[in-house]
Amino acid sequence: MKTQEELFIKMVLDAWDTQIKRMDDLFSSLSDEQLMKEIAPGRNRGIYLLGHMAAVHDRMLPLLGLGEQLNSELYKIFVENPDKAITQLPSIGNLKVYWKNVNTTLSKHFINLPATEWFQKHNSVSGEDFAKEPHRNKLNIIINRTNHLASHLGQLVFLTSKGE
Amino acid sequence: MKTQEELFIKMVLDAWDTQIKRMDDLFSSLSDEQLMKEIAPGRNRGIYLLGHMAAVHDRMLPLLGLGEQLNSELYKIFVENPDKAITQLPSIGNLKVYWKNVNTTLSKHFINLPATEWFQKHNSVSGEDFAKEPHRNKLNIIINRTNHLASHLGQLVFLTSKGE
Repeated sequence: MKTQEELFIKMVLDAWDTQIKRMDDLFSSLSDEQLMKEIAPGRNRGIYLLGHMAAVHDRMLPLLGLGEQLNSELYKIFVENPDKAITQLPSIGNLKVYWKNVNTTLSKHFINLPATEWFQKHNSVSGEDFAKEPHRNKLNIIINRTNHLASHLGQLVFLTSKGE
Repeated sequence: MKTQEELFIKMVLDAWDTQIKRMDDLFSSLSDEQLMKEIAPGRNRGIYLLGHMAAVHDRMLPLLGLGEQLNSELYKIFVENPDKAITQLPSIGNLKVYWKNVNTTLSKHFINLPATEWFQKHNSVSGEDFAKEPHRNKLNIIINRTNHLASHLGQLVFLTSKGE
């Protein structure tokens, strides 16, 4: 029997896992050639969104107090700069490895995090603000990042030959 | 002071409200001409996704036990059929009204729903299954529909002259 807190956490992590699984399957199905294409005319390329997702998820490690970023250079390339601003990008093969590694690392932490920890503040909110806004906790980061993931997943589907 | 349940409900509804607001702003900013275009070559048109979002949200009313659908004919046109299968669509003006009305109706119900109600089963799960899987509650529908919303929002951005 789960406590109410454990039930909330399961709801949020199940949604995260579902979107991660879909994105994994999509990235696995796309060739390097497809990932070098723009998602829609004049928009981000697949390679950029692959790096962007890896970078944003990597940043979740320090944000959630789970450790250092695994590949801190990604953030500058794929978040602070737009696509095509930097010509020398990591290879698609390496980016796929970074994407896999960061999600596996996050997942291991998530499984072991005690229920009460999820309702503690994350590292982008001050103690003072958190006292007034207790919804700005670690679990809330997962809710928001799952929506971020869903948003880019909706876009990356356009790289497949047949999408929804 | 909120209970743990109320805090969690706030987290989920805040994420829903954020995505609804973004979608509202986007639909308001798009002209009828833009909404008649395909989001990417060979993909759904804006008008279809507008109707699709209105239809899926309308279906949430009976799913959550909050009442009948407001425009039950939308589901057949915009969910059970793909884009371009049905040539006679409601006007964009009417679809924007349906979209607004259904979200306003949902929002009124959400505000008044007692915290314990959110953790009761929704209408697509049997009592027997729910006893084993208590995460399949009404609030979980909001988490999933918020991701659905984020996914199509990511796509509809491509109809703007400059997107992310």
